[in-house]
Amino acid sequence: MKTLNVNLGDRSYPIYIGVKLLQDPVLIQKHIQTKAVCIVSNTTVSKLYLNELKKSLNDYRLIEVILEDGEQFKNADSLNQIYTALLDNKFNRDSTIIALGGGVVGDIGGYAAASFMRGIPFVQIPTTLLSQVDSSVGGKTGINHPLGKNMIGAFYQPQAVIIDMHVLATLEAREISAGLAEVIKYGLIWDKDFFEHLENHIEDLKNLNVMQLEQAIYRSCEIKAEVVSKDERESGLRAILNLGHTFGHAIENCLGYGEWLHGEAVGCGMVMAAQMSLAHDWIKDNDFDRIRKLIQAAGLPIEKPQISQHDFLEAMSLDKKNKNQDIYLVLQQGIGKAIVTKDYSFNKLGKVLS
Amino acid sequence: MKTLNVNLGDRSYPIYIGVKLLQDPVLIQKHIQTKAVCIVSNTTVSKLYLNELKKSLNDYRLIEVILEDGEQFKNADSLNQIYTALLDNKFNRDSTIIALGGGVVGDIGGYAAASFMRGIPFVQIPTTLLSQVDSSVGGKTGINHPLGKNMIGAFYQPQAVIIDMHVLATLEAREISAGLAEVIKYGLIWDKDFFEHLENHIEDLKNLNVMQLEQAIYRSCEIKAEVVSKDERESGLRAILNLGHTFGHAIENCLGYGEWLHGEAVGCGMVMAAQMSLAHDWIKDNDFDRIRKLIQAAGLPIEKPQISQHDFLEAMSLDKKNKNQDIYLVLQQGIGKAIVTKDYSFNKLGKVLS
Repeated sequence: MKTLNVNLGDRSYPIYIGVKLLQDPVLIQKHIQTKAVCIVSNTTVSKLYLNELKKSLNDYRLIEVILEDGEQFKNADSLNQIYTALLDNKFNRDSTIIALGGGVVGDIGGYAAASFMRGIPFVQIPTTLLSQVDSSVGGKTGINHPLGKNMIGAFYQPQAVIIDMHVLATLEAREISAGLAEVIKYGLIWDKDFFEHLENHIEDLKNLNVMQLEQAIYRSCEIKAEVVSKDERESGLRAILNLGHTFGHAIENCLGYGEWLHGEAVGCGMVMAAQMSLAHDWIKDNDFDRIRKLIQAAGLPIEKPQISQHDFLEAMSLDKKNKNQDIYLVLQQGIGKAIVTKDYSFNKLGKVLS
Repeated sequence: MKTLNVNLGDRSYPIYIGVKLLQDPVLIQKHIQTKAVCIVSNTTVSKLYLNELKKSLNDYRLIEVILEDGEQFKNADSLNQIYTALLDNKFNRDSTIIALGGGVVGDIGGYAAASFMRGIPFVQIPTTLLSQVDSSVGGKTGINHPLGKNMIGAFYQPQAVIIDMHVLATLEAREISAGLAEVIKYGLIWDKDFFEHLENHIEDLKNLNVMQLEQAIYRSCEIKAEVVSKDERESGLRAILNLGHTFGHAIENCLGYGEWLHGEAVGCGMVMAAQMSLAHDWIKDNDFDRIRKLIQAAGLPIEKPQISQHDFLEAMSLDKKNKNQDIYLVLQQGIGKAIVTKDYSFNKLGKVLS
């Protein structure tokens, strides 16, 4: 097992990465100081892992909230389902929420914890590769609004994140690929060597080689933790973590949430960001080819879906990075470095979107 | 004009107390660093003061959300009305919410600011005496849930609080009395001299004597700021600010929100807390008489409404202070000192509730 500490002053917390951690009551209980626990999960994950987790939580007053599975359920109704269960069972501040599931469950569970009685502790047990390398670090929690993704939420840090690689075995290949999109992102924005390492081991990762996975998850979380600890509330640097996301969110929004997986939209979005970077001579032809090739090799879409330029721009105009009506983009400056900018050619953006 | 600084590290902010501050664009604009502003108000207050405020905000992109007036509208629907207006108008993080109204508007407006895109700036302009001395300090924001008051929310500090005593002139006497309940509370929990001062000037305060009001509001905010700065997230001391509220919330909950004003329920709740304290010999007969007399002189109810003991306890069991199924109460130890305790006679509580 590897342990990584996310340094955020009095909101610091550990991330554990290993195999069969769900079956380790000592590890899990170490981070639950309350008498009552509410497990938030979804219909898919709970069938596979809820009982295993419950066995590690024998000594607590336990309730469960099982949400429908899917991004389209990351909404106010699901959130209210959690509040109602907590109140029906007379849960108070002496309660912990454990989010057992992917990004949707983690985001809703975390936001329920952030907002219930103005904040109770929570523990993340991410069960998809994507949530293990992304949402488990940095404390972004929230839900979607009919008018935009992740529009409602809070920055709220967990007590601990427990990454059990064993659960990846039950994921579909498509979901592993979606997770690899975020892994590749860390190479692109921060670490050229890591990108190169991924080029050499992308097949191992797709095949869930445990040693390669542990290393890639660790390095991904480490990069994210480094960025987040420098800018917890996203006033500047942290926005580079959005590489591929401005395009990606627009794709998800236009196609309807759940049509493409988030990681698939981000993968395609990173290719589009690379196209923009290439058009501005911020990366070379060869860099672009490598980026496109690795994203494809990871099993991700590299061609944007049929969306009109108008709809694309409209969806991008809602992005949280925007200021004064300008659309900010995260673009590459070579491999391993990213910038957040509004100083790009709108004409070139039009071509990428057409 | 008096200025008080609430010291919370990088979340510190000033409170201004004066007359006709709504007509002071320099003061108001000093605390708005964004291009866009959303004013949240209600149907009653907006008729009286919205235009005045808008005149002080000439240079901003401005939208308004006018909620129905009343505690029963402090709910998820009203909150969503704000989110939708912000998104419909393409507001992003470069936006400030101004809450112009009483406690309900301040709580919802503040919570919308805390949660929209995970947090945008907000400014409080409280227009009732109660909100001026209570919700304007301490950063508690939130909404009610059908199963309990203030169950959903965040600790979130404003950029500034602007207390314009001029607006109190349009309040009904009943609402001034409700505000005085919280003013009296500060004397009871923290400052015996202030309590005595209130005994001597309660008529001046009811008659809106500006000098007396300014002094009472200042001292109330100062006491609250002192308590809050010692315990921002209510892990201990801050709970004494809940004197009268455990009983009061239960009264509001059982009668239906909006039947009694919050301050009226708290006033009555403080008499009940004093009864409990007297029953335990923690205050003297004479103290109890003084407390009861001042609360009555302020124009507040001192007899509990018809609620069965069972319903009362059921409602109190939902209080956020509770731990491990115990009901915690804030009780007096003499005038000017309060404790938070579960070590009281349940039998005596039964008598107070019967």
